[in-house]
Amino acid sequence: MLPFIREDLNQFEAYTPHPGGDSGSAVKSDLIMDRLDTNESPYDLPGELKQKLASIYQRDIETNRYPDGSHEPVKKAIANYVNSAISEVSTPITADYVSVGNGSDELIRSLLIATCLNGSGSILVANPTFSMYAILAQTLGVPVVTVNRSEANFEIDLIAAKQAILDQQNPPIKVVFVVHPNSPTANALTEAELDWLRSLPQHILVVIDEAYFEFSQTTVAGEITQHPNWVILRTFSKAFRLASLRVGYAITSPELTTILEKVRLPYNLPSFSQEAALLALTHREELQQVIPEIIRERDRLWTRLANHPLFKFWPSDANFIYGRLKSNNSDQRLNQIVQAMKSQGSLIRHTGGGLRITIGTPAENKRTGDRLFSLIDN
Amino acid sequence: MLPFIREDLNQFEAYTPHPGGDSGSAVKSDLIMDRLDTNESPYDLPGELKQKLASIYQRDIETNRYPDGSHEPVKKAIANYVNSAISEVSTPITADYVSVGNGSDELIRSLLIATCLNGSGSILVANPTFSMYAILAQTLGVPVVTVNRSEANFEIDLIAAKQAILDQQNPPIKVVFVVHPNSPTANALTEAELDWLRSLPQHILVVIDEAYFEFSQTTVAGEITQHPNWVILRTFSKAFRLASLRVGYAITSPELTTILEKVRLPYNLPSFSQEAALLALTHREELQQVIPEIIRERDRLWTRLANHPLFKFWPSDANFIYGRLKSNNSDQRLNQIVQAMKSQGSLIRHTGGGLRITIGTPAENKRTGDRLFSLIDN
Repeated sequence: MLPFIREDLNQFEAYTPHPGGDSGSAVKSDLIMDRLDTNESPYDLPGELKQKLASIYQRDIETNRYPDGSHEPVKKAIANYVNSAISEVSTPITADYVSVGNGSDELIRSLLIATCLNGSGSILVANPTFSMYAILAQTLGVPVVTVNRSEANFEIDLIAAKQAILDQQNPPIKVVFVVHPNSPTANALTEAELDWLRSLPQHILVVIDEAYFEFSQTTVAGEITQHPNWVILRTFSKAFRLASLRVGYAITSPELTTILEKVRLPYNLPSFSQEAALLALTHREELQQVIPEIIRERDRLWTRLANHPLFKFWPSDANFIYGRLKSNNSDQRLNQIVQAMKSQGSLIRHTGGGLRITIGTPAENKRTGDRLFSLIDN
Repeated sequence: MLPFIREDLNQFEAYTPHPGGDSGSAVKSDLIMDRLDTNESPYDLPGELKQKLASIYQRDIETNRYPDGSHEPVKKAIANYVNSAISEVSTPITADYVSVGNGSDELIRSLLIATCLNGSGSILVANPTFSMYAILAQTLGVPVVTVNRSEANFEIDLIAAKQAILDQQNPPIKVVFVVHPNSPTANALTEAELDWLRSLPQHILVVIDEAYFEFSQTTVAGEITQHPNWVILRTFSKAFRLASLRVGYAITSPELTTILEKVRLPYNLPSFSQEAALLALTHREELQQVIPEIIRERDRLWTRLANHPLFKFWPSDANFIYGRLKSNNSDQRLNQIVQAMKSQGSLIRHTGGGLRITIGTPAENKRTGDRLFSLIDN
């Protein structure tokens, strides 16, 4: 124990990136792995775009100079993109509504820092959900209040959520985090859930993480100008295929944007990542052409697994599907399955008391479906 | 005022990257600016290395996949590099002593989070010094205790520092931040200062920022295995010419490294930045060939400015020099000078009650020296 470290931090386990993906044990090194455990796109940028980005680096980026800390070109391009997907009657946003982060993770941390530090607030999450909200809160010593979701359809237990907000007073709940659609359970927010978020008082910040927006095509961006206590998070790591370069963004009121800019690291985003985000937005139609294929593949895999004797899989609004064992759904059994799948060449994720499978290429999905059926024989 | 934001944060001004560098007012747009305000290297990577990095991106990086969150190859290469500059009698470090951040800024924030949050500690800095320690502390609500430096040679007022540690009890000082050599004043730690750092008790973390190590060639890395309460920060943004890509690192005990890894964002470093750091280390002899030139240029500019009728400039152990007006050294007058220099094409920094001038190319240094002398006529 180092005596200068916060006591509560010593208790706490680090997040392990790619828990299934480490070069472990029983895996033959010549096995090609189907990496369906982190909800990435299965496709790299097309060769011409990689070439273009490489040329932009060589020609336009001075490696020795600090990046543009204002992110102005990126923020403008993001604002245009956000506006392209809201209805005509909604108020369009400007770059003043956008803040860009080193992945959404940095924005989640900035929001926690701005609201809850030093005993000023706690957060509410409905489990199972994206684990980083609670992990980042815990590294900051911010209390996490949890409520459950329906075991039938993963809707948030709204009665419990309302009660938690009334009950939790020391410190009070300052932020509610939801994913739309949720990870790992793949369901979009219902109208009842949205109405609850709309009804929350102005002193509670509502974070709506739309990491999978391009797959769900449902967004609350059209409402953002009406709700100064809402912030939407999005990412270039999924449909835009830039996971390696770490670009996320927040859409929120200019007033909260100013706070996020104040809290973030001044040069948080490498020049290469900024150029990549601009390029991806310029070529977004080309990049998004594969989304219908991914959605078809998702529905095909889901339909197939609906007949699996061991599993129940739920419908999905995202680029992954979520399932549990019909009986004996223990962590131990789920771990065994993940390991068995890994030894055959499919990385899938055991999380939130179930299995989450990212939709990959048609061949990857086919192989992974086959392997899940072959488990019955083991 | 947003009601969910911490009250202390509303008081607080954001850090403005490149305060002199914004596309301001009186500057003719066709003027080539000599950017001597951020202590970068004046040289980009050589063309062949940019070409090589571009090829590595196209061939080896899957843009759609999350980066390696373990940083193992980068940490190993850094450990080798650190060991190459410590004496033969010192204990070499391993990758377990290294943590890599999105610039040193992220590591500074992680250290503050790990030690001082939620009323558990305050920090000590000796002004003038690198402003990010205090800025990041303030965004986290961490109290900052300041002591002064000698007006003659910028040594830390050690009597005041010792007294501050005794006096400050609520919360106690948990971290001391020093830069070696200091920015903006360019002086390396003296033996008296080092002895004080060596004498600090185990419950105080000592952060020694060696951002300018490659220019000073003085390091305390050889002592790191003896001091579990020391951490050294370094960066690829200066001598290694990678400012645009944001790579910093910490050298400290495996135990504190584990804590830093726990606190950081799991995918904090883009794949492209990791590849660039590896490439820079592989080609470090080539990249460091310009350091003797920069040091010669620094000494030449300093010698020239020693004869300036208005200014006193101090000797430097880094890639910048620091000066003040011999009389009437007001912020207003210094601002006027920075603006006058900018209108002529030289960006220099007004900071810490003086002027900091980065050493650029010989032509940039010549022009900037000329312009400083021409000020007398205005």
